[in-house]
Amino acid sequence: MTHGFQLTELTCDKLDRVKRDPRYKKITDKDIAYFKTILPHWRVLVQGEIPEEVHLEYANDWYNVYRANTPVILLPETTEHVSEILKYCNQESIAVVPQSGNTGASGGSIPVFDEIIISTRVLNRIRSFDELRGDLVCEAGCVLQELDNFLSQAGFQVPLDLPARHLCHIGGNISTNAGGIRQMRFGNLHGSVMGLEVVLPDGTILDNLTTMRKDNTGYHLKNLFIGSEGTLGFVTAVSIATQRIRPAVNVFLLAFCSFEDVVKAYTLARRELPETVAAFEVLDSDTIEVVRDQDFQIPKGSSFPINDTHPFYVVMETAGKDKDIEDLRADRFVKFLKEEGVTLDSGVARTQEEIERFWSWRNNVPKAIVQSAPSSIHFDVSLPLPELYNLVKACREWATAEGLIGPDILAVYGYGHVGDGNMHLTIPALRDDEALRVKIDDFVYGWTAQFKGSCSAEHGIGLMKSPYLAFTKSSTMIANMRKIKDVFDPKGIMNPYKVFPTKEQEEHGELVRRRAQAGC
Amino acid sequence: MTHGFQLTELTCDKLDRVKRDPRYKKITDKDIAYFKTILPHWRVLVQGEIPEEVHLEYANDWYNVYRANTPVILLPETTEHVSEILKYCNQESIAVVPQSGNTGASGGSIPVFDEIIISTRVLNRIRSFDELRGDLVCEAGCVLQELDNFLSQAGFQVPLDLPARHLCHIGGNISTNAGGIRQMRFGNLHGSVMGLEVVLPDGTILDNLTTMRKDNTGYHLKNLFIGSEGTLGFVTAVSIATQRIRPAVNVFLLAFCSFEDVVKAYTLARRELPETVAAFEVLDSDTIEVVRDQDFQIPKGSSFPINDTHPFYVVMETAGKDKDIEDLRADRFVKFLKEEGVTLDSGVARTQEEIERFWSWRNNVPKAIVQSAPSSIHFDVSLPLPELYNLVKACREWATAEGLIGPDILAVYGYGHVGDGNMHLTIPALRDDEALRVKIDDFVYGWTAQFKGSCSAEHGIGLMKSPYLAFTKSSTMIANMRKIKDVFDPKGIMNPYKVFPTKEQEEHGELVRRRAQAGC
Repeated sequence: MTHGFQLTELTCDKLDRVKRDPRYKKITDKDIAYFKTILPHWRVLVQGEIPEEVHLEYANDWYNVYRANTPVILLPETTEHVSEILKYCNQESIAVVPQSGNTGASGGSIPVFDEIIISTRVLNRIRSFDELRGDLVCEAGCVLQELDNFLSQAGFQVPLDLPARHLCHIGGNISTNAGGIRQMRFGNLHGSVMGLEVVLPDGTILDNLTTMRKDNTGYHLKNLFIGSEGTLGFVTAVSIATQRIRPAVNVFLLAFCSFEDVVKAYTLARRELPETVAAFEVLDSDTIEVVRDQDFQIPKGSSFPINDTHPFYVVMETAGKDKDIEDLRADRFVKFLKEEGVTLDSGVARTQEEIERFWSWRNNVPKAIVQSAPSSIHFDVSLPLPELYNLVKACREWATAEGLIGPDILAVYGYGHVGDGNMHLTIPALRDDEALRVKIDDFVYGWTAQFKGSCSAEHGIGLMKSPYLAFTKSSTMIANMRKIKDVFDPKGIMNPYKVFPTKEQEEHGELVRRRAQAGC
Repeated sequence: MTHGFQLTELTCDKLDRVKRDPRYKKITDKDIAYFKTILPHWRVLVQGEIPEEVHLEYANDWYNVYRANTPVILLPETTEHVSEILKYCNQESIAVVPQSGNTGASGGSIPVFDEIIISTRVLNRIRSFDELRGDLVCEAGCVLQELDNFLSQAGFQVPLDLPARHLCHIGGNISTNAGGIRQMRFGNLHGSVMGLEVVLPDGTILDNLTTMRKDNTGYHLKNLFIGSEGTLGFVTAVSIATQRIRPAVNVFLLAFCSFEDVVKAYTLARRELPETVAAFEVLDSDTIEVVRDQDFQIPKGSSFPINDTHPFYVVMETAGKDKDIEDLRADRFVKFLKEEGVTLDSGVARTQEEIERFWSWRNNVPKAIVQSAPSSIHFDVSLPLPELYNLVKACREWATAEGLIGPDILAVYGYGHVGDGNMHLTIPALRDDEALRVKIDDFVYGWTAQFKGSCSAEHGIGLMKSPYLAFTKSSTMIANMRKIKDVFDPKGIMNPYKVFPTKEQEEHGELVRRRAQAGC
């Protein structure tokens, strides 16, 4: 089943829960004229003056859930441009949304009402690269895949990889603390990012763009901007410790009869291949079906590398330096899993073509699901490892009991990053219905809170999950976050309506979280 | 040469540059009586009531540079104890110094005047350990080596290692963002620490002790407490993603004729052994001599494993899963270095005994230097890799030209972590002379600023380097750090006189930094 593209309703019409804050000025022609004194006039994209499809590139999100009436999109070319723009917006109380590749999954990069967009799109130079250690300094608008292409010439790679790599910008990756499929190998961005250049809302340029691996001089302010979703400042450039490419890659496709066996295999992989296991992704059989049905496998129409149907599959990758050694280890490991009775079937890919073919079954899941149904509801929860798939089961049972499957939703899919305890529960809904979304959200986040999980593992809170922040974080934590927000953005111009819940939502969430933790 | 232990002068008498802040209350009997209502009376150590040597365990630093007249040392047993103590101190404006293992190298854990000490010493329980993923939750007072002993039973290790491992507490490691000799393998603590429990100065317990590998829900507040040296709150517990032990260890001792060759070998090691190289430590020949002279090698009196004398040595470690594979790779790499003409000589240790013997030449350097001269001045700077040893050369030339070698100092030693660009320049001084220290500091930090280096790579700022913070960080950065300090500790009771420079020092530092960066 494939649906045609249908423009989603404007977010401000769809979401009753958010009201426009009258503190923010409505943009006038005078403001636009001023922006044209800062930027070349072709870097100021005014709604109505540009084609609708260009406006939508910025004003509509990748999942087609959020759409905004943003009056103007600014494309600064330099950090100084960003500084001048923000200084003016702060003085004039103009609300702004920083936007990178616009591939975010929580609606964080789309305005809600008439906030203006400041895009990183032409802020995309590589400033320096040191081949001795692999220290990369680049601007926020560099596309992740393009950085990898550049680095690969010197034998290095960005220590981050996600299916949106061809579109997402490194600035957005930083601002959402993107995780992705190789986080189990290279750790999170708080570990890899050495420094940031950030423009604060008042136009101050925070010059923390160091390439020092170690620098314990005062507070590590940069970490505040990693994962704060553009609510504290605008990241203009980033310095990353990149990693040597490990060219000897093996990609395993493993079949299992239960999620317990998936966890067993994960534990064995960490024990037997601690220095080379780079990814360990689980997919349930329904998720594999949707990739096949939507013809998203590579090459098109090719069959799944494992013949029979099994309840669970894992795409696992190892990467090391020496081909002979890694191939030997891979064979040894597959044999070991079989002997232990953990896997039902398995295949190993070694050529570039085979590797891409194996990975396509995982990497094309989001696209296939989006294509399968007019509206998809994507979750991104963290849970203790043994509970990870129980959420999917519980959700499926609940949706069946509620009579949702059929009339409202197509199915309940479960796939995700086992090693990070990160499940992407996904529900293809048959219509874009806010009440349905809220009903499902309430169930999923309530269940997650019971097991002390997180309502967002790697996608961030954005607009989508702000009502549920307090399901994961205590009021004490949120109160201290608000204090930090006030320090950097006292006028609240940076990405408003995002991340923070309303007071009522916070109180409700605190209640749910406390009850869940008390085991009620 | 060996000096006898001589008690250092009280810090408040030695340092003219710091004045006692009259905002802070002087402790009274009433305060001590109150502390005894919070803690069992034997957990309240009052100066004069306890033996002098017990008082010195807390009031004197490991390097014998700082000593305090602290009137009372509190040993809380629980997080609630810490909360009650801080709440009272905040109300009463009593200044406090959080102290862990007291092995810090910048004087951060010793009071300057009459601040009280709150020690983590009996806050040392392991709260939980999950063998599936290696998630450890423990209290701040756990000794690093003891955590490793505990974890090793399940095949895991703390992703941090330093020579003070037998004494330092994990809470202090967190608060100073300790780096150590395996940071190049496991990254920094911002990457490994999943959550913290922190008591804020007003007694609020910040409950962020999660074991989720991924949790992008709002600001990552925990990172503010990693490396803030107890100036924002008191870390009571920590949750760490530990690492599988890689049992197949090879330790290399390599000899070089120049630092350029050391850098070449480092680059080759990262290229050839990207997934297994775990440590890469350089020592110059004078540093090796001092370990030998002070008889700190293991076993005592044993000779250096390389016969001839060479200008530079490297202790390098690789660690992997499979012994056959790692031994093969090690032999291959040593042969490769020889063929490339990079090394002059080499040895590889494989048995536990040999490995300890090789490492003893590196790990005992701080102890040997401290024993060699009454006073040692330890630096911990970050620099671009090619400049790393030039600092030592420049300092040696400068000290010779100034006529310091002989009358004032014994020598200039250089050793450190090549991969992290972290040089431990060390100067054994013949007396504890503040003017001499300032003279040398000015030279070293001025030189470091010229190359955009950092005055503290991993030891933190503490009391020692606060005058030099602005040599590394801009006034904009420092201004924002001060704002963060005001958010969490508006009354300034947490570890006062540390980290931040005075206004004059900041202005001077800003000038030095700007001049250096402008190439003047």
